[in-house]
Amino acid sequence: MPGRLSVTLNDHDLTVPPSTVWTVEAEQPVSYSIKVSRNVLDPRNRALLNAGAPDTQPAKRRRFVVIDREVHRLYGRLLRSYFDHHYVLCEVFVIDATEQNKSLEAVASVVARMDDFGIDRRREPVIAVGGGVLLDIVGLATSLYRRGTPYIRVPTTLIGLVDAGVGVKTGVNFNGHKNRLGTYEAPVAALLDRSFLKTMNRRHLSNGLAEILKIALVKDAVLFENLEAHGRLLLEESLQGSSVQSETAARTVLRRAVQGMLEELQPNLRESKLERLVDYGHTFSPAIEMAALPDLLHGEAVALDMALTTEIAYRRGLVSSTERDRVVAVMAALDLPVHHPTCIPDLLARALADTTRHRDGQQRLPLPRGIGDAVFVNDVTQDEIARAGAALAILPGLTRDVDA
Amino acid sequence: MPGRLSVTLNDHDLTVPPSTVWTVEAEQPVSYSIKVSRNVLDPRNRALLNAGAPDTQPAKRRRFVVIDREVHRLYGRLLRSYFDHHYVLCEVFVIDATEQNKSLEAVASVVARMDDFGIDRRREPVIAVGGGVLLDIVGLATSLYRRGTPYIRVPTTLIGLVDAGVGVKTGVNFNGHKNRLGTYEAPVAALLDRSFLKTMNRRHLSNGLAEILKIALVKDAVLFENLEAHGRLLLEESLQGSSVQSETAARTVLRRAVQGMLEELQPNLRESKLERLVDYGHTFSPAIEMAALPDLLHGEAVALDMALTTEIAYRRGLVSSTERDRVVAVMAALDLPVHHPTCIPDLLARALADTTRHRDGQQRLPLPRGIGDAVFVNDVTQDEIARAGAALAILPGLTRDVDA
Repeated sequence: MPGRLSVTLNDHDLTVPPSTVWTVEAEQPVSYSIKVSRNVLDPRNRALLNAGAPDTQPAKRRRFVVIDREVHRLYGRLLRSYFDHHYVLCEVFVIDATEQNKSLEAVASVVARMDDFGIDRRREPVIAVGGGVLLDIVGLATSLYRRGTPYIRVPTTLIGLVDAGVGVKTGVNFNGHKNRLGTYEAPVAALLDRSFLKTMNRRHLSNGLAEILKIALVKDAVLFENLEAHGRLLLEESLQGSSVQSETAARTVLRRAVQGMLEELQPNLRESKLERLVDYGHTFSPAIEMAALPDLLHGEAVALDMALTTEIAYRRGLVSSTERDRVVAVMAALDLPVHHPTCIPDLLARALADTTRHRDGQQRLPLPRGIGDAVFVNDVTQDEIARAGAALAILPGLTRDVDA
Repeated sequence: MPGRLSVTLNDHDLTVPPSTVWTVEAEQPVSYSIKVSRNVLDPRNRALLNAGAPDTQPAKRRRFVVIDREVHRLYGRLLRSYFDHHYVLCEVFVIDATEQNKSLEAVASVVARMDDFGIDRRREPVIAVGGGVLLDIVGLATSLYRRGTPYIRVPTTLIGLVDAGVGVKTGVNFNGHKNRLGTYEAPVAALLDRSFLKTMNRRHLSNGLAEILKIALVKDAVLFENLEAHGRLLLEESLQGSSVQSETAARTVLRRAVQGMLEELQPNLRESKLERLVDYGHTFSPAIEMAALPDLLHGEAVALDMALTTEIAYRRGLVSSTERDRVVAVMAALDLPVHHPTCIPDLLARALADTTRHRDGQQRLPLPRGIGDAVFVNDVTQDEIARAGAALAILPGLTRDVDA
């Protein structure tokens, strides 16, 4: 249905009610690029300078950057030098991008500053530098500002590199619900630079590896084997590749994770199809994450969900005990938890009910089938969930105390 | 560019920087209908009941309605009877939809109530009943809620029927700027019922006639002639058609106005093309309206802009003196102002500068060419504006005191 305007008209006969009906149909093009780059803040790398901006006379170049406070502490000086080097007037707005203040108020603070800066939305793409929370907040702010102002995603966390940074979702929490408000708005570009990971703490790296493991479990056995063989080393080296072998592993793992993610996102950008492989690990985790705040990171909640659903799949005969053990072993190698005190049957049941409502009244729960494949089911019972949860709770040595 | 995911890969040679680039391309379909209906709150009319909702068992039918306080005072009882009659559980949320509280806070109040109601977004379209401000607020709230929840527009004002109600724009004011935040989000349907107009006061009818006049001036000479011949009568009869002649005129004027509007909107739903005929009257008016708040209604500000630009067009030889006088006469017949104390050269210059920034650095100012046609110009000077404004200020008997 390419764009058109059609009218059916019955409005000349005054003896019957008028019944004009117009139908408006259109196709809105979406296009954006995701580029792997190294050291995007090195002045010799022009990727950040050129992204989403037509040639402008140097004297007039300006950029508005929103950056997470912690990232700013580590990279603020480099960022300013980068733009100074290129004679770009750069305004840097630092925000505390945490799950707790991922709110409409945070969005309002960003748009207020954009407004004061007086952004020229055709020449001055907003640059968002930070983790998933920051990207979501800035994405929402820019999608609302003048009904859409271009922005660039520069994820600085692993979860940002393989998940929040490459998609089109924006959002904030509301009324105690995660990402209850948001939009689908593609950035003009995302720049993926794993150099940022070298300053990440280990727990946040684990957090990102959880999303990579998700893609591996439901659609990429080769990626899983890479995590099995090199996951621990990648974690220890912060994916910086200190040897040829670990450099290759880091590149392969990131590339396959992004590729797998994009293959799922591209045909379903606005999530009109409700059976989504990338929802794996995201059925129970939203409620777990919100209930445990600030105890669990997003990827940790996703890991808990994956452990639970792998156990359910095992009990249904979809996954062998060997496969289940391999999954649990990889989680352990990646420092990911498989159980948490929050995961009581009551909460898990409510979580599933809420997600089911979100999926139009059906569970549409992805369960792994072996490793690297998945099926959707609609008939998981509360009893099954409780039994699987109980089995994980007593798994020796695997219940990680995330406060430690 | 139908949807696809393409990758260019150079990431196996470890001696050069990896350069994987993915390009995500997709087409997002947009489709909605605009239906003329009479007496939508009459239980025999099932349009509102059926709009945007698949068949649901009657016992489970629910609707969440957001309605303007004044409209609720007049139609709240009818609305509840309508849904009672059809065994629909209906929650009605009444808001003060005024330009002054067209804010992010108003949006938050709507989504909070939607959230408490626990909307099933696939079966329970939100129904927005009110004027343009209400439709804009509710449209933004629903477009954000779970990244998009279907809604129905039921405009109750004339400006809503021919402008805000038929398009896809949503928005709120921010930081002193009109509609600075918003989205493009099509409703599932809009129901146009001019029966609501019978309770509108005359000034608000004039306000809506201004947007109809806009379409007439830039693209529909026949519509202009209809306004010239019947505009005053339409205003006096609130478009209710008490005779065959005025009924025909009301239908014709509304149908042509909506048709003209949609012809301009459909190919340019997200306003990527910056030269928009429907922007006529909207170059100077945003600043005028905000500066004069709450003194001027939107359509009155638009009328001031149209008078000013018609005068500029006359002084450029684009419009004859006869044509200019006909336009001014129609404005007078429709009770629309042609001048206001706010319109000093300084404000008008700032207004044009702000709009120019919004239009990517060029004025792209539509000026009428005769009646029913327009051209875009980029070279209007401050001097021209000041002279045209001064000419209007002294036009005998036409400077309406809007406070009166």
